[in-house]
Amino acid sequence: MSFGSKLLTRRGIALLQFSSVGKTPCGGFRTFTTSKANVCGLNISRNYSSTSTVDVELTSVRYKDHVQRGNFAALQPDDVSFFREKLGKHRVITDQSDLDGYNVDWLRIVRGSGKIVLKPKTTEEISIILKYCNDRNLAVCPQAGNTSLVGGSVPVYDEVILSTSLMDAVINFDEWSGVLVCEPGCILEKLNDYLLDRDFIMPLDLGAKGSCQIGGNVSTNAGGLRLLRYGSLHSTVLGCEVVLADGTVLDLMSTMKKDNTGYDLKHLFIGAEGTLGIVTKLAIQCPAKPNAINLALLGMDGFDKVLTTFKRAKRDLGEILSSCEYIDTASMECVTGNLNLKLPISQSQFYMVIETSGSLGEHDEEKLNNFLEDIMEEKIVSDGTIASGSTQIKDIWALRERIAEALLKDGYCYKYDLSIPLTVFDELVQDMRTQLGIGAKRVCGYGHLGDSNIHLNITSETFDKSVHNKIEPFVYEWVAKHNGSISAEHGVGFKKRDYLHYSKPNEAIGIMRDIKKLLDPKGILNPYKVLPSNFSPKI
Amino acid sequence: MSFGSKLLTRRGIALLQFSSVGKTPCGGFRTFTTSKANVCGLNISRNYSSTSTVDVELTSVRYKDHVQRGNFAALQPDDVSFFREKLGKHRVITDQSDLDGYNVDWLRIVRGSGKIVLKPKTTEEISIILKYCNDRNLAVCPQAGNTSLVGGSVPVYDEVILSTSLMDAVINFDEWSGVLVCEPGCILEKLNDYLLDRDFIMPLDLGAKGSCQIGGNVSTNAGGLRLLRYGSLHSTVLGCEVVLADGTVLDLMSTMKKDNTGYDLKHLFIGAEGTLGIVTKLAIQCPAKPNAINLALLGMDGFDKVLTTFKRAKRDLGEILSSCEYIDTASMECVTGNLNLKLPISQSQFYMVIETSGSLGEHDEEKLNNFLEDIMEEKIVSDGTIASGSTQIKDIWALRERIAEALLKDGYCYKYDLSIPLTVFDELVQDMRTQLGIGAKRVCGYGHLGDSNIHLNITSETFDKSVHNKIEPFVYEWVAKHNGSISAEHGVGFKKRDYLHYSKPNEAIGIMRDIKKLLDPKGILNPYKVLPSNFSPKI
Repeated sequence: MSFGSKLLTRRGIALLQFSSVGKTPCGGFRTFTTSKANVCGLNISRNYSSTSTVDVELTSVRYKDHVQRGNFAALQPDDVSFFREKLGKHRVITDQSDLDGYNVDWLRIVRGSGKIVLKPKTTEEISIILKYCNDRNLAVCPQAGNTSLVGGSVPVYDEVILSTSLMDAVINFDEWSGVLVCEPGCILEKLNDYLLDRDFIMPLDLGAKGSCQIGGNVSTNAGGLRLLRYGSLHSTVLGCEVVLADGTVLDLMSTMKKDNTGYDLKHLFIGAEGTLGIVTKLAIQCPAKPNAINLALLGMDGFDKVLTTFKRAKRDLGEILSSCEYIDTASMECVTGNLNLKLPISQSQFYMVIETSGSLGEHDEEKLNNFLEDIMEEKIVSDGTIASGSTQIKDIWALRERIAEALLKDGYCYKYDLSIPLTVFDELVQDMRTQLGIGAKRVCGYGHLGDSNIHLNITSETFDKSVHNKIEPFVYEWVAKHNGSISAEHGVGFKKRDYLHYSKPNEAIGIMRDIKKLLDPKGILNPYKVLPSNFSPKI
Repeated sequence: MSFGSKLLTRRGIALLQFSSVGKTPCGGFRTFTTSKANVCGLNISRNYSSTSTVDVELTSVRYKDHVQRGNFAALQPDDVSFFREKLGKHRVITDQSDLDGYNVDWLRIVRGSGKIVLKPKTTEEISIILKYCNDRNLAVCPQAGNTSLVGGSVPVYDEVILSTSLMDAVINFDEWSGVLVCEPGCILEKLNDYLLDRDFIMPLDLGAKGSCQIGGNVSTNAGGLRLLRYGSLHSTVLGCEVVLADGTVLDLMSTMKKDNTGYDLKHLFIGAEGTLGIVTKLAIQCPAKPNAINLALLGMDGFDKVLTTFKRAKRDLGEILSSCEYIDTASMECVTGNLNLKLPISQSQFYMVIETSGSLGEHDEEKLNNFLEDIMEEKIVSDGTIASGSTQIKDIWALRERIAEALLKDGYCYKYDLSIPLTVFDELVQDMRTQLGIGAKRVCGYGHLGDSNIHLNITSETFDKSVHNKIEPFVYEWVAKHNGSISAEHGVGFKKRDYLHYSKPNEAIGIMRDIKKLLDPKGILNPYKVLPSNFSPKI
């Protein structure tokens, strides 16, 4: 059913014409294969073969001026023997060709030289491993799905890689309360499929869902497409079990929504990126499966109209609004031009993708149509379409989700994941364009308008140090001036740790350090990550 | 419009008859006057006069076997002079008759002997006060609306009372993002009124809203009536400013929904009950005002039918379900019998109050009617009514909210606010009844079914030590066995600190202590609260 035809039924006038959306060449919408992962809409081939992996410069070389190896022990044959004795030889990987995939990140920008991968199956095994590493002063890099965009999930030097991939059991699902209890290695998409069979869904959804693991999602406080509706993991994670650096098992496994018995320690581990402990079990509050999903693509001329549309959507769609995405014209030109995707509405200065999901389809459609009719009549929106059927839904989502992939075709892409007030989304892009002048090929902004989260992207033919120096620290200063966050949903990892002060005052960084020292006195857990590089672990 | 008449229109059969609800004598529904506060549905007269206050036994006497004064300094004339110099004499209260109200809790069970009340107006003043108290080793009891049910907001001995009541300004409201920035002393109800004028609401609602302050709500992680829909304060508080024990101002004032720049420290202070710092500023994500609210009262025979109704409500009402409350027959008999309230449906073994709120009234009504028709036809519900108009809505809510008040008319009431799996709500009540035999006058359960939060109440003619000893630790062991929480939404405060181990393992209590020592090394902030009594502050 088209936007236009719906409007016709209500007020007898056809305000819009729906154009059939062209089929996209690779059908990349929220699909996933084992060889490709869509990370925040970025399709990247992953190759575990050693020939291609060594193409990626070692982090210790590329970032030699910014990091130096901590005073940790180096792996010895006795260590390997210990791990083999505890885990069995098949769950201890030391063969170089097998190690390569665990040492390189998705974006192929950072590469460690970890000599061993351990694959525990139980909390007790993780406890034994960490106690041993802590006693031996061996650094450890926890790794879940390895889809980090900030270099958080691979070693910087030779850290022991602790993979949670074999801890992938659903332990319990309570159909009365909707609370799922599971292990950290469960793949997000598989959990969602498991829940769909029981008329529930996961409260989060990411492009990388086909390979990312829930333990990694929680450890990085992953955001994604459902945050607007169901909130962050700080709200949906009810409990967790964590193994601390010294092997202590910390049981915070409440399955209750309400628990006011003292400091809620689980929040420390949500978003700590494995630097304070390793999450070994989780309880998550899951929402009921919505019966109906509707999607609209809208175009508007003037950023003020974007804001008005958002405000009206919140008011008129209320409880059924589940996504509110923003695409500026430079982003749309990129995705349609570089990937030959068809724009089903006329060209505009700005675009929005609005999704509703609810328990009764006909109600949702009526709300959406009334909302659209009103903003059309009031000339807030210049053109729009409602997707009908899964193909059109996929095609419209592709215009949003494949922007990152399209940008890479420009050459090199400088990427920034920022929280800023939504009222200044376009101002940031304009200011950056002015700042860069002709130095940049393209400056564009898109992202989660409903969550005040913009993805600012700049492209040039190849990496250009002078362009880079014009962007940074300009962009971070701009964000700080607007009280934003220099990492909205991607985390800090290795790459952003030295920019932390743009979003956190010294007092907060000081307390972060104190808590790190408290829970991991030797600093063995995911070193060189999250905390600024001037952090000196007590060793 | 009645439940029955609606059903008639859809399938031509009248399943129910709506009975007009009798007007309640005191109209206590979510109303509040300065002389009465409704705390979790409990109307308690508050009297600041010294004659009545001294009737309450001093905590130091009543609990003399459970607590002893820490090695803090006693207030000296020089201290009073210092505070007067910094705040002016009108914001430093030392007159005994004026002090009394600040020393006694709402329930009139605990009473401190604080010699001074300070009323700062700015963060800087709080910083000066705390730095001074920390240097002088003077203990401090932060106090917001003083509506704690666990003795958290009054001194145990002679702590300096730091009242936030004069810090009650709304600093900013962003109508685009719905983010409210305010001071901690803002009264919850006033904030909600402020937001209603702008088509938004507060994400929490409590019986005590007329006097409780938002800083206290956040410090105690208050739950309340909207938690089912909008989540806990861990999800809606975006940022806060906190003054630490040594006067350090910790700026965690993000107004962004997404901020993944390191450990999210604000969560430490949400629910810390003022033991880690004093919240001086807040940013809160506020939802849009719902346009329509509907309310139904249902009766069912058999606890299995309560569970089925809840599950079906989640599925069929989905996004508009905003409250799902549970009342067992013993609770209903109490509120109707002791307060002469009229039950508008036939007697049942169990009752549920289901509220919907949404953006389009006619849609909500249709969903609610279809849901009710289905569960009626399937004999899940034996009787029910939909409230029409504000009077009927108030009258139905009164049946739920005035239970606590009704229980007090039995004589003495032993009160427990527990999280347990909702499937065992009735089992707990039955087990307690068996445990107590004829010793108890009444054993009943009611509460927030949708949040797995039951209020277990037992009454006897007067306080009976043998009854009490049969209840405790039986109830805590029962809750622990079911992995529940011994304090769902009321917090720990002074009264529950020594029961913490029923819901928290030793490792977690140990880390709580470490964090307390880290942020408040001398232990001056709200001593004798939250942490178990064997905690020894370093002084």
